[in-house]
Amino acid sequence: MIDFTSLLDYLKSWGIDFTSILDYLGTFAFAISGIRLASAKHFDWFGAYVVGIVTAVGGGTVRDILLNATPFWMEQPSYLIISGFAVLFVVIFRKQTIRLNTPFFIFDTIGLGLFVVVGISKTLDFGFPMWVAIVMGTITGSFGGMIRDILINEEPLVFRKDIYALACVFGGVAYHICLLFSLATIPTQIISAVTVIVTRLLAVKYKISVPALKADD
Amino acid sequence: MIDFTSLLDYLKSWGIDFTSILDYLGTFAFAISGIRLASAKHFDWFGAYVVGIVTAVGGGTVRDILLNATPFWMEQPSYLIISGFAVLFVVIFRKQTIRLNTPFFIFDTIGLGLFVVVGISKTLDFGFPMWVAIVMGTITGSFGGMIRDILINEEPLVFRKDIYALACVFGGVAYHICLLFSLATIPTQIISAVTVIVTRLLAVKYKISVPALKADD
Amino acid sequence: MIDFTSLLDYLKSWGIDFTSILDYLGTFAFAISGIRLASAKHFDWFGAYVVGIVTAVGGGTVRDILLNATPFWMEQPSYLIISGFAVLFVVIFRKQTIRLNTPFFIFDTIGLGLFVVVGISKTLDFGFPMWVAIVMGTITGSFGGMIRDILINEEPLVFRKDIYALACVFGGVAYHICLLFSLATIPTQIISAVTVIVTRLLAVKYKISVPALKADD
Repeated sequence: MIDFTSLLDYLKSWGIDFTSILDYLGTFAFAISGIRLASAKHFDWFGAYVVGIVTAVGGGTVRDILLNATPFWMEQPSYLIISGFAVLFVVIFRKQTIRLNTPFFIFDTIGLGLFVVVGISKTLDFGFPMWVAIVMGTITGSFGGMIRDILINEEPLVFRKDIYALACVFGGVAYHICLLFSLATIPTQIISAVTVIVTRLLAVKYKISVPALKADD
Repeated sequence: MIDFTSLLDYLKSWGIDFTSILDYLGTFAFAISGIRLASAKHFDWFGAYVVGIVTAVGGGTVRDILLNATPFWMEQPSYLIISGFAVLFVVIFRKQTIRLNTPFFIFDTIGLGLFVVVGISKTLDFGFPMWVAIVMGTITGSFGGMIRDILINEEPLVFRKDIYALACVFGGVAYHICLLFSLATIPTQIISAVTVIVTRLLAVKYKISVPALKADD
Repeated sequence: MIDFTSLLDYLKSWGIDFTSILDYLGTFAFAISGIRLASAKHFDWFGAYVVGIVTAVGGGTVRDILLNATPFWMEQPSYLIISGFAVLFVVIFRKQTIRLNTPFFIFDTIGLGLFVVVGISKTLDFGFPMWVAIVMGTITGSFGGMIRDILINEEPLVFRKDIYALACVFGGVAYHICLLFSLATIPTQIISAVTVIVTRLLAVKYKISVPALKADD
């Protein structure tokens, strides 16, 4: 097996912090999704910026409030700055953005995988059991999009389209299984993130979705 | 007067924890209400499950965040498990659920009474004054339904139908009066819960509701 | 320069706590805006009261949760009482309220300026850097109105009309500049609040608004 820790350390020694890059790309993609939906609702620039931020950091903020931790974005301004770049990007490349749907989708999905893993490992660090960590991973990945949809006054897409929130749960279960087999942290996290990403990619490619729940009408 | 503490202790010695049973029944009824409304909006299974959980634990979670306590549902998985059973129940008995409206309503109302009392006593334990406890009891009882309605993109029913949130306030006032008369904790809590339950039952039976507020148009 | 601290202390010795008066006027105006919108949606009295409270204290509550502080309204009942008076006011003067739009707007704007300053100075007291304080000032000023619009199931006005949230940011930047020039606290806070107020008044008077963000459709 490749020694992932050494590999990441090696990249860092070259000034390449791989996890941060993925985190920033994911933040950018999440912010873009908020900004585009806000602009479709004729929000002004500043409102679209706020929706972009909330989409990008909302899930992690809810997690940190529940864990009684200082919200992560209050510790460094990068997340607000990246969301600002996302606004500029949408404005400058607005005619190209439709053609960019596929890369956005890829970044968004990679971001989802990473956010889930970050949520799980932070929760375990706080001493909570695995089932709380799986819930927190799912909240980290999906509540940003949920709050976005509340702000733009739509029914939350994350609970009605594709396999989105459920992919987060699968990633959490994969994390759990890896820990049961005493895998080291880095491969565990990579397997968990890849599970989220592959689940969502396959679900979208093969149009798999959770069936609507039919109750009485 | 019956010695309620001894009675409850006696039941517990037989393995019957009365408060927990009511708590679980209330959670189940709250979750059912969320799941049914989510399914009417064509949420998928997982989305309906999330709405069920949020309806059941949302009020207590807002209370715990305001009190700076660890959210109660993070300390034992029962609440998520019960919400899971509620999804199964709605799916399996979906043709019967309309006929079950009355028992659901009863459980929901009992749950409401209990949730209010739990909210009040937890807030007093944290050293806050009575008026904060009444507010927290009302939040515990009514904010789950409020968040449910936000998620399914409807105007909150709790502020427009029946006497729901106001019944929580009445229960809090009853709690306060009992304490002023130096009643013991258990009878105080029973009187408070019964006040909530009876207020709501009477309001629904006699179609009493708080009048709409008429302002300028 | 007038010695503002001495002036405020002098007024206080006459029983006039100027900051509290502005705080209460702002709370009253914020609550009125929530109650009027709730009544337009046929909320009942109690629901309108809750929307009024949430509009008035919602921004500061989100700030305090993010700062991990006890929400300010839990420390004294004034805010709930003022919101109660706001309900009575709307009911009693409902035929006059349209003609009172201008004073309401003035109070609301003064309240906004004060809320922003309170949010900034509280955040700095907690040891956070200036950029976090500017964000918290903006949240304190604008999130109450945002939650109000979510509760009444409308798209948040604060991100689509006038210069509202952005005025809060300008006030924060003014605060920052004053501190860079080593101004004392009181004049800094007055300049910051006045910046918010003047920005909003000018924006409304000259119908200046942030342009809608145009993205792909």
